[in-house]
Amino acid sequence: MAHIIYGIHPVQEALKSTSIQFEKILIGTQKSHPPLQSILDLAFKKQIPVTFTNKETLEKMAKGGVHQSIIGIIKETPYVDIGEILSHSKKDGMKALLLILDGIQDPQNFGSLIRTALGCGVHGMIIPKDRAVGITPAVVKASAGATAHLSIAKVVNIATTIDGLKKEGIWVYGAAGELRDLIYHLDLNIDLAIVIGAEGKGIRPLVKKKCDRLFSIPMKGPLSSFNASVSGGMILYEVMRQRYSANNPPFLSLA
Amino acid sequence: MAHIIYGIHPVQEALKSTSIQFEKILIGTQKSHPPLQSILDLAFKKQIPVTFTNKETLEKMAKGGVHQSIIGIIKETPYVDIGEILSHSKKDGMKALLLILDGIQDPQNFGSLIRTALGCGVHGMIIPKDRAVGITPAVVKASAGATAHLSIAKVVNIATTIDGLKKEGIWVYGAAGELRDLIYHLDLNIDLAIVIGAEGKGIRPLVKKKCDRLFSIPMKGPLSSFNASVSGGMILYEVMRQRYSANNPPFLSLA
Repeated sequence: MAHIIYGIHPVQEALKSTSIQFEKILIGTQKSHPPLQSILDLAFKKQIPVTFTNKETLEKMAKGGVHQSIIGIIKETPYVDIGEILSHSKKDGMKALLLILDGIQDPQNFGSLIRTALGCGVHGMIIPKDRAVGITPAVVKASAGATAHLSIAKVVNIATTIDGLKKEGIWVYGAAGELRDLIYHLDLNIDLAIVIGAEGKGIRPLVKKKCDRLFSIPMKGPLSSFNASVSGGMILYEVMRQRYSANNPPFLSLA
Repeated sequence: MAHIIYGIHPVQEALKSTSIQFEKILIGTQKSHPPLQSILDLAFKKQIPVTFTNKETLEKMAKGGVHQSIIGIIKETPYVDIGEILSHSKKDGMKALLLILDGIQDPQNFGSLIRTALGCGVHGMIIPKDRAVGITPAVVKASAGATAHLSIAKVVNIATTIDGLKKEGIWVYGAAGELRDLIYHLDLNIDLAIVIGAEGKGIRPLVKKKCDRLFSIPMKGPLSSFNASVSGGMILYEVMRQRYSANNPPFLSLA
């Protein structure tokens, strides 16, 4: 299925990706400016057809999104399968790091989590087919173009997928607000998949049961949770921090 | 100046706060349901007038925001002064933790940072009067009601404010992407104010100069930054983690 991405930054990032194939690019302005010119140059290099059109056409296609006079039409569905994510993680030489989103609904949160995951070295993301937002133009935009660089798999059944990951030797830890197990006490420098639940609802019971371990981020004050994309950021930060420390141990003096 | 907040959760949170004074509450539905009833009960207890009105009035007031048939009209500007934040932090008995936002523009980011700051035990937030978003209804909503519980000061000059904080013995660390100083190497269990810059632009040069230290969160991949509210979450998480570890040292065995 063809789908679209819009905005200067997302289109630029997608053009740099080798996994995304453009059908064409639509431009709704005649005014040249440097970022637009760089997109035209890249499109020319990659032999992608560029069509000039009017703003109204772009407005309609972007459905109210901030398109900045540029829309890219993408050839293929951008999802990969789990096998690709696993082989990518094996090639990396680091411990595996996957992110499973069990039902994120908000495009802002999903996009932000993709951007964060890319920046934290996540090898791939897994989302469910139903009751969750997919890679829509709003998500691409919210990800600042990160969707072009991160492998995302869409699966029918998250619980079954977790069983498969376990067979591959990957530990599955769920951010479930269980106060007993604080994130501070976890060793995250292992082959790992982190599960994050839906906004407000958290991880579904069946998926929760499949997790090897449930943990929480301690929180102060009267509210009951952090925003899903922020808590995702905190968790992935902690994984990065632990892996950095493991690879850069503090200077040890000989007693 | 009177201002409004809307949505069930934000209004509920504001009603629980002692610092926020309601002028009245407008309700745009006749259907009773438990969360609405709890708001009515609280309003009755606090002797706040409740008016039933039509949905169109609320639509207009919320300017397209998701008001969930409820709008609260707030009496006073919700800002505090720095002195209040400092005395609040002294009373807490913990090391001071302030957050300075040097020009955040996006209501979603600002609201999300307020929610995160509250959950991480920040004593108060400082924002500039100009070129930054203030506490608008959209921000209150994005904060999930956290604005009702966090002290926020609005100052004319961030650089001068930093000078004042330093005189109070507070260290000022800026998240400025200086790769030399990774966040992993900082001791954050001190009286501390964290500075976060505007989306895309970062901290302004003059404010940067005033910081005692500049640091960065390491990042992988082709993008140049994390989302402002996510990096704020990572930094505040790290502060919480360090303070938790300092107060809960690991069990030491005697050699």
